[in-house]
Amino acid sequence: MTNLQKLPTSVISLAVLGVSLLPTHTMAQTTDNYLSAQASDPVKMGWMQGFPPPKDKVLSVADGSFIQFPALRYSVVHMREFLPTVDVSPGLGAPSTLQTALDPAIDKVTFQPLNVSKPMSWAASLEKNYTDGMLILHRGRVVYERYFGALTSTRQHAVMSVTKSLTGTLAAMLVAEGKLDETKRVTDYLPELKNSAFGDATVRQVMDMTTALKFSEDYADPKAEVWQFSSAGNPFKPDGYKEPVGYYAYLQTVKKQGKHGEAFGYKTVNADALGWLVARTSGKSVVDLLSDRIWSKLGMEQAGYCQVDALGTPFAGGGFNAGLRDLARFGELIRNRGNYQGQQLIPAAAIDDIQKGGSREDFAKSGYPDLKGWSYRNMWWITHNAHGAFAARGVHGQTIYIDPVAEMVIVRLASHPVAANGANDPYSLPAYEAVANYLMKTSNK
Amino acid sequence: MTNLQKLPTSVISLAVLGVSLLPTHTMAQTTDNYLSAQASDPVKMGWMQGFPPPKDKVLSVADGSFIQFPALRYSVVHMREFLPTVDVSPGLGAPSTLQTALDPAIDKVTFQPLNVSKPMSWAASLEKNYTDGMLILHRGRVVYERYFGALTSTRQHAVMSVTKSLTGTLAAMLVAEGKLDETKRVTDYLPELKNSAFGDATVRQVMDMTTALKFSEDYADPKAEVWQFSSAGNPFKPDGYKEPVGYYAYLQTVKKQGKHGEAFGYKTVNADALGWLVARTSGKSVVDLLSDRIWSKLGMEQAGYCQVDALGTPFAGGGFNAGLRDLARFGELIRNRGNYQGQQLIPAAAIDDIQKGGSREDFAKSGYPDLKGWSYRNMWWITHNAHGAFAARGVHGQTIYIDPVAEMVIVRLASHPVAANGANDPYSLPAYEAVANYLMKTSNK
Repeated sequence: MTNLQKLPTSVISLAVLGVSLLPTHTMAQTTDNYLSAQASDPVKMGWMQGFPPPKDKVLSVADGSFIQFPALRYSVVHMREFLPTVDVSPGLGAPSTLQTALDPAIDKVTFQPLNVSKPMSWAASLEKNYTDGMLILHRGRVVYERYFGALTSTRQHAVMSVTKSLTGTLAAMLVAEGKLDETKRVTDYLPELKNSAFGDATVRQVMDMTTALKFSEDYADPKAEVWQFSSAGNPFKPDGYKEPVGYYAYLQTVKKQGKHGEAFGYKTVNADALGWLVARTSGKSVVDLLSDRIWSKLGMEQAGYCQVDALGTPFAGGGFNAGLRDLARFGELIRNRGNYQGQQLIPAAAIDDIQKGGSREDFAKSGYPDLKGWSYRNMWWITHNAHGAFAARGVHGQTIYIDPVAEMVIVRLASHPVAANGANDPYSLPAYEAVANYLMKTSNK
Repeated sequence: MTNLQKLPTSVISLAVLGVSLLPTHTMAQTTDNYLSAQASDPVKMGWMQGFPPPKDKVLSVADGSFIQFPALRYSVVHMREFLPTVDVSPGLGAPSTLQTALDPAIDKVTFQPLNVSKPMSWAASLEKNYTDGMLILHRGRVVYERYFGALTSTRQHAVMSVTKSLTGTLAAMLVAEGKLDETKRVTDYLPELKNSAFGDATVRQVMDMTTALKFSEDYADPKAEVWQFSSAGNPFKPDGYKEPVGYYAYLQTVKKQGKHGEAFGYKTVNADALGWLVARTSGKSVVDLLSDRIWSKLGMEQAGYCQVDALGTPFAGGGFNAGLRDLARFGELIRNRGNYQGQQLIPAAAIDDIQKGGSREDFAKSGYPDLKGWSYRNMWWITHNAHGAFAARGVHGQTIYIDPVAEMVIVRLASHPVAANGANDPYSLPAYEAVANYLMKTSNK
C-alpha cells in the first residue's frame, strides 16, 4: 500500500482484532471527515482487483492497511484471505428455505434520528450507516434484503463483537443445561486464571461483563492493554516476539482494577474468558460447539468462520464471519426462544435469561449517552424498550436486532468508518423501532 | 512444538508450498523409516487438541512444524487454520445427490504391487498409502467411501498438485472456447514475463510443462529455486524480506535453461504461470473462474478453498483444498466429457484434449521409473494404459483417477510421509487397475 499512512508497529497487531485503527475516542463520532458510503464503495475503489492488483490497491495485514477505512469496507468481506480461520460447518444438508415476501415500501418508512431534528427515510439510513447488507425478517419471512459494497449473498461478512453474543448464547445454553454453574468462580473451571483478575470473579460476572479489569480498549493510548491482547492473538508474530502467545495466555496476565460485580464494563477479554469456559466445560471450542448445536441444525447456506490465534483458538470476542441470510436464521432461532421447526436447539430458559436483561443500574455506570435504560446480559445488549428488543452489536455497525413484540429480526452488516456504535446508533435504533411499528401496522390491516 | 527438530529458516517458507520438508530425493522412497498409518493417526496423536493444546501438540507455520510428518496428517485437513485462504464458492443451492451402492467386496480385491512379489488387498493398500479418504464412483454411483485420520465428510483436504489439473482444465476450457490461443507466446498475454524464461515459451508449452526452466524442486538443495518461490508466495514475510512478493512477481525472475518444447519437466511454476494466463484472459482468478464455471454448477456440498499469497493470488500450482465427495463430483464431470445433467459445463473438446495425452517421448525424458509410457497434457497425467486412464496427482498421494473404459472415478486423499508419488504408486496404480477390472466384471454379470 502506498496511499495510506505508515502505521506504528504496535498498530499492526491490533488489526487482527478486526477493528479499524482510527483513534475514535479522540474525534467527534460523526462521519463528517470520511468519504461517504457511495464514494467509499469497495468495488468501485478496486481493492485487491487485477492480476496483480496495482500497488496502491494492495491491502495487507503486515502494515495494517487491510483494516483502515475505506479499505476496511473490502476487508470485512474478505477476512479469511488475510488471516488464518476455522470453519463453523453448516453440515452437508440442503439449506432451509427462507420464505420471502419483500415489501419495497419499507424504504419509505421515516424516522426521527437521535439528537438531530430532520427526519430520515429507511433507505437513506442504509447509506448513512455504511450498510453492506440488510435483511429484515417479519414472522420469519424475508420482507427486506439488500446487499451493498463488497457483500453478496454468497459471501460472509465480519461481525466482530456480534461474536460475543454467540459466545454468550452458548454459555447461557450450558448454564441452562446445568453444565456450567454461573455462581461458581472462574478458577473452579480454569485454574490457569487463578492469578489473573478473572480468578475471583464468578462465571456470571464474566457473562455480564461486570468484572473489574485493568484493561483499556482506548486505541489512542499506545499503553492500552488492548495492544498486548491483540499481539498475543495475532497469529503472525513479528521477529523477537515472545510472550504471551494466544488468547488464553494473555487472559492469565489481566490485572484487576476495582471490585467485581459493581458495574458493567465493556471489555472484550471477558468474551474470550467466557469462550475458554465454554470450551473447558463442553469439551468443544466455541466454533465446534456452535457448529454442532446450531450452525449444522438450521439449514445454513454457508459455513461461518472465525479467525484463530497461533494455537488455533477461535477469537471468541470478535472473530466470527457469516452470511447475511444465515445470521438471520440464527436471529430467528433466538426470537423463537431456541426452537427451530419443533426442535429445541437451545433451552428456552437460556433465551429468556438473555431477554430479561441484566442490571440497568450497573449498565448506567458505563455512561453510553444513547443507550439510556439499557442493560447487558449473556453478552447481548438489552434495550428494555416498549417491545423488549435486544441486540448483538459489532463495532462497525453490525447487528442482530430482535424485536419480540413486532416479531421482527433485523440483521445489518456494515463497515462504518467510526469504530463505535455511537456513530451509527442515532440513525439506526429509531429506524429499527420505526420499521417494527410499520410492520405491526401492516400486518394488522 | 518441542518434539520436532528445529528447522532452518529457509525451510519455513517452503511449508506454504504444502509439501513436507523431508529430503525425499536423498532417501529411499519407502515408508520403512516412518510411523505406520495407524501409529501416526492424527486424531490419536492429539495435534492441536485441548484448551489450550499441550505445548508438544502445537503446530505452527512459523517453525514449519505444521507440515512435518506425522503432524502433516493433521494439517492437510486444517490448512486454513494455518494460512490465509480464499473460498471457491459452491453457490447457495442444495447439494446434488450422489447415488450410493456400496460394495464391501471391493476391500477384498487383490492386486500385484509394482516391484514387489507379494499380492496385496485393496483394504491393505489404503493403510499402506496413508489414505485419509477414499471414494470410488462407478457409472456415477458411490460404490466405496471411507474416511481415516483427521478427515470426515464435512471437512476439506489439501490436494496440493491436484490443483495443477484444475488450473489446466480451466486453461483447456479457455482454449476450446477460443479465449486463450495455445499457439501464442506467453508474452502476448503477459508482457510482464518478457524477460523471464516464460517469455518465448508458447502457451501450450506451459500447459504441458515442456518449458525449459532453471528451477529445481530438490528440497535437499538449499540453493534450489523452489525456496525463493516459496518465500515469494508466503503471506507471512519475515522481517527484512523484500522482493519478490507474490507468485506473479516470482515468475518474472525464472531463468531459462535449455530449449522449450523438447522434454517434459515437472515444475510447479508452470502451473502458476498458467493460472496467471487464465486470470488475464478470463478476467477472473482461477478460484473465481472455478467457482463460476464448475464449483457452483455441480451441487457441491462444501466450499473449496485455496491458499493465497500476500497479494491475494491463489496458489494455482498447489493450494487447493476440497471435500472428498466434491472432488468425486468434479472427477465425474471430467469422465462425462464436461457434461453434467445435460449441461455442457466444459467443452467436450477440452476434455478430449486432456484424454488424448501429450508427447510420450517428451515425457520419457523425465525418467519416472514407474510411469513408463505415460504423458502429461493440460496438467493431467495420462497413463496410456489399456483403459486410457488419466489422473490428477498430489505430492502426498492425493489423486483423482479416471478410467473411461471402466466408467470409474477414484478420488484418494492421503498424507503419505514421502513427498513423492514414487513411494505410493507401486501400491496404488495396480490397485486402481484391479478395482477397475473388478467393477467391469461385476457389472457384466
